[in-house]
Amino acid sequence: MPKVRVNAFGVSLDGYGAGPGQDLDNPLGRGGESLHSWSHPTRTFQRILFGKDGGKTGVDDDFVARGMEGIGAWILGRNMFGPVRGPWPDESWKGWWGDEPPYHVPVFVLTHHARPSFEMKGGTTFHFVTDGIEAALDRARTAAGDRDIRVGGGVATIRQYVEARLIDQMHVAIAPVVLGGGEALFAGLDLPALGYRVIQHVPSKAATHVVLSRGG
Amino acid sequence: MPKVRVNAFGVSLDGYGAGPGQDLDNPLGRGGESLHSWSHPTRTFQRILFGKDGGKTGVDDDFVARGMEGIGAWILGRNMFGPVRGPWPDESWKGWWGDEPPYHVPVFVLTHHARPSFEMKGGTTFHFVTDGIEAALDRARTAAGDRDIRVGGGVATIRQYVEARLIDQMHVAIAPVVLGGGEALFAGLDLPALGYRVIQHVPSKAATHVVLSRGG
Repeated sequence: MPKVRVNAFGVSLDGYGAGPGQDLDNPLGRGGESLHSWSHPTRTFQRILFGKDGGKTGVDDDFVARGMEGIGAWILGRNMFGPVRGPWPDESWKGWWGDEPPYHVPVFVLTHHARPSFEMKGGTTFHFVTDGIEAALDRARTAAGDRDIRVGGGVATIRQYVEARLIDQMHVAIAPVVLGGGEALFAGLDLPALGYRVIQHVPSKAATHVVLSRGG
Repeated sequence: MPKVRVNAFGVSLDGYGAGPGQDLDNPLGRGGESLHSWSHPTRTFQRILFGKDGGKTGVDDDFVARGMEGIGAWILGRNMFGPVRGPWPDESWKGWWGDEPPYHVPVFVLTHHARPSFEMKGGTTFHFVTDGIEAALDRARTAAGDRDIRVGGGVATIRQYVEARLIDQMHVAIAPVVLGGGEALFAGLDLPALGYRVIQHVPSKAATHVVLSRGG
């Protein structure tokens, strides 16, 4: 049975999945980049995002790699797709990731504003879903077939899917930083009541990896 | 210069320092005991709380031991001292810890209701401070001399001292559990604005140890 997963989602010690003051120059908010200090140097991240050889192996890399394995479709919130707000002024914005995005499968972007699908190099097709998170998940399931669906973020998107009990497994990496504000990942979500429990806890020097699972 | 410290304070993955539904039978709330699963088996905890030999050594034990070293006075919130609320009905409640509490130094209990000081076996004297957190800290500083002051908890007490910028160093242990509710330790506190940054991050199998420091 394919799973709906969150992987490699960084959260600060004080519970934020993005920093305060998000804007075009600071898409993750002030200090938000520090949530990903553990993943950026890894071999898998360097290979997938930059096409580079080298990078670190070990626990952190294992978790990044695991997050890319067996994924048949992604779901992204609109802010994670790009900084454009409101109706699309044109179709020039094609994501943060250049000509060949690192997904290589269909990506469903949640938005209130319709836009035609388009394909990028390497097998990534962006689809825009205007009728809600469940519709996006239905389409992602169909696209993914027997593979898993990854909900990439951001915080608001993950929270919506968690509240709807639609995430089966969630890997978060607690980064040893404090942000003081921003988007709280778990505040106000009663995770045990939603069926989650911790099934794995693997610390590394750079982060604490925790896997939460629903039911089972 | 003596420091005001928080040590070995357990917090859940979702940010709670105590679970929901605190009552006489559940002084740490539902699931709250799981915040301390990392510390209870340690050699230092077993020795200090139960007078037992044995127990685990290693990272977790090092942090428990560090929290007991060089402490000249403690400050506790009233709920951490005991379950009695409102005016003291009598002087029969003498803490959770039996005849010989594990402090062995003066302990200042924050309360709205005056009560005479009393001494227990082993050098612990409980004092009751009715004129606020700064007064309690002044008295603790005088008692501690050149040793440090430890603010033992609970959550509300720690939050008050953090907001007042009176804690110099804070060791929290993130336990790999979710509680879903209870007393949030850091929610709404802007730790960077209050001057805190992470100076140490040491994972163990059982918890992630993070030390925050103010200034310096």
